[in-house]
Amino acid sequence: MAALHLLTPAGFKAGAAAAGIKSGRQPDVALLLCDVTATAAALFTSNKVCAAPVKIGRQCVAGGKLRGIVVNSGNANACTGKQGERDALAMCRLAAKVAGCEARLILPSSTGIIGQTLPMEKVRRGIERAGRSLGESAKHAAGFADAIMTTDTRRKSAAVRCKIGRESMTLAGVCKGSGMIGPRLIAAGRHATMLAYLTTDAKIAPPLLRRCLLAAAEQSFNAVTVDDHTSTNDTVAILASGFGAAVESPRAVKVFAAALDAVCQDLARQIAADGEGATKMVRINVHQAKSERDAKMIARAIANSPLVKCAMHGNDPNWGRIVSAAGMCLAAFDPDKCTLQLQGTAVFRGGQPVQFNTAAISRALAAKEVVVDLRCGLGAASATVWTCDLSKDYVTINAEYHT
Amino acid sequence: MAALHLLTPAGFKAGAAAAGIKSGRQPDVALLLCDVTATAAALFTSNKVCAAPVKIGRQCVAGGKLRGIVVNSGNANACTGKQGERDALAMCRLAAKVAGCEARLILPSSTGIIGQTLPMEKVRRGIERAGRSLGESAKHAAGFADAIMTTDTRRKSAAVRCKIGRESMTLAGVCKGSGMIGPRLIAAGRHATMLAYLTTDAKIAPPLLRRCLLAAAEQSFNAVTVDDHTSTNDTVAILASGFGAAVESPRAVKVFAAALDAVCQDLARQIAADGEGATKMVRINVHQAKSERDAKMIARAIANSPLVKCAMHGNDPNWGRIVSAAGMCLAAFDPDKCTLQLQGTAVFRGGQPVQFNTAAISRALAAKEVVVDLRCGLGAASATVWTCDLSKDYVTINAEYHT
Repeated sequence: MAALHLLTPAGFKAGAAAAGIKSGRQPDVALLLCDVTATAAALFTSNKVCAAPVKIGRQCVAGGKLRGIVVNSGNANACTGKQGERDALAMCRLAAKVAGCEARLILPSSTGIIGQTLPMEKVRRGIERAGRSLGESAKHAAGFADAIMTTDTRRKSAAVRCKIGRESMTLAGVCKGSGMIGPRLIAAGRHATMLAYLTTDAKIAPPLLRRCLLAAAEQSFNAVTVDDHTSTNDTVAILASGFGAAVESPRAVKVFAAALDAVCQDLARQIAADGEGATKMVRINVHQAKSERDAKMIARAIANSPLVKCAMHGNDPNWGRIVSAAGMCLAAFDPDKCTLQLQGTAVFRGGQPVQFNTAAISRALAAKEVVVDLRCGLGAASATVWTCDLSKDYVTINAEYHT
Repeated sequence: MAALHLLTPAGFKAGAAAAGIKSGRQPDVALLLCDVTATAAALFTSNKVCAAPVKIGRQCVAGGKLRGIVVNSGNANACTGKQGERDALAMCRLAAKVAGCEARLILPSSTGIIGQTLPMEKVRRGIERAGRSLGESAKHAAGFADAIMTTDTRRKSAAVRCKIGRESMTLAGVCKGSGMIGPRLIAAGRHATMLAYLTTDAKIAPPLLRRCLLAAAEQSFNAVTVDDHTSTNDTVAILASGFGAAVESPRAVKVFAAALDAVCQDLARQIAADGEGATKMVRINVHQAKSERDAKMIARAIANSPLVKCAMHGNDPNWGRIVSAAGMCLAAFDPDKCTLQLQGTAVFRGGQPVQFNTAAISRALAAKEVVVDLRCGLGAASATVWTCDLSKDYVTINAEYHT
């Protein structure tokens, strides 16, 4: 079987073009279109400073139907006032012309520098060229994924195929995100830029699709942090063409939700692993917390501590930073009741240091994926947050990414 | 008039010694003693993971009376279980022997690595040697300030003298702090390590002293962040010998509070300016917020954004990061109503970018102190938070500070 990709679900095609918004002839405008009007759901940033495409996109998706998505990278169209909204609408109209549909059925997205108006003549030519390049091959899927990248060092995609009864269903996605990553996505809401677009051929009703997307995002994109800076442009959207299995029975919903969870978590982990300057991914598992809210709060406090992230970069089992990060947030926490493991080895238990082989743990921390397990001993709730280490390259990238 | 210092207020002396807790023969144990039983107040970290000296110190200061303070650097005596508490108590007893008082009148403090028990034989010899070196000269004050440093690159001190009626009052302080700086000090409470010790010859009642210290800390130490990591050991303590002016009348209280505010803010700014790897101090002023809580939340969100801190390091007027940081916190915020100034120049107003000379602002951002002014246009509340830029040196210091 050929590898699954964004355009494997029946009914989708994509195109991309280099419009000159980003420097250096890289692709920066892309279209994802469905052959029919798809059932759709989307989540947006919770940042009160939200980009023009987010404002327009909320309205587009309100009806639960979309024909497609138009995206540009290199410019976020954020903090651009009324002109920004006019430009986002113009992007929808141009893409709608390609799709042969109403403009309100196109979701606009942008990512890049904040505070500059879009070069609309370049954008127009880019959308037209992307429209002429539409196709449904793996190459077209890769082209779309490449065109939405900014400081990303690699393309991010995931897909699964499963059976619902005797019918088959495919679900796929691509995303971008490396810096300004601390999404707090909410339904029809408001915050890094991470963008993720999902396609499926499942036949599913809009409210159910929206509910499944929100649940999946909470355990995936909302559980990733690179720098905890919630962007003005974060967007996750899913389009369901309806050419595949119907998602109606409780069992079918369970299968669909599991597939969506798997793809979203795969994509979210790829964002953490490709965090700006990252040399490794760090997975923070908090167990036995008093409540799920507490578990998430503790996991985020650890994941966002620059001291913890620098220790991870230095392969340093400096567990005091982890335990103190847990203690500083508002969650219930008692050092005398907790156990902390790094890569499976206990380093702190019951308020006391545990003797360990520093050199051995340091070697274990040099892995591409580090797992931190903190058992709180206070309850039964758990949470996982994915992050990365903090390297000098993060500083280089962000001190030199000039306006 | 000779320069004022920690031991200028009448009734205080200090001593220091190199006990070998830190490497390289640097001073690491220090004593600050009052000739009489002083009126005292102290604030401690709000971290639920708090060091043994914090636990013991809370009990010591509960009565509002102290004879002195014993401090070691190089080892935080945190996450050290019951042994840690026994060791902190032993430090009090050893210092009490020097002072000729009860052990409960000595406040213990520690700063350094978390999770290692104190080398008590070295500590004992250090306290005894510090006791033999007691004196009240500027040199002794500087010796005390040096002995409490860890990753600090410079000594931090401040002092003021003022008149209360016809009597004179002196208030002085020293502090340390460079990394793990995100204090949330609370009264008899619980979080970086920053340590600050203040002396005054004012005659003042314990509850009033405590109230003034809490108010001053809120606008100074609690308004500083380097990495927003609240330490296990943060401590601010003040001792009032009573040899100077009486602080009783409302006017006297006002003068005393103003002096305390001035010294605490001077010390807090020195911590921000000497943040690990910092090349500049950044002052975030939030004006016209809906409430003081909102103003503080917005100022902290901006100050703690690694993206903002990196832009500051690169002298980059990347104001989109500042505005988006303001929008991502829970405070009320509306980009269409705000005005953002960098070094006095408007860059964003009413939801729209303002044209500015990028090269000129970039030059202005290269100063040792950068001022960010954000007017929210939503109310009359304001707040100031001090921070620093994020450089590669922060990563070097914290990826290589091995356990």
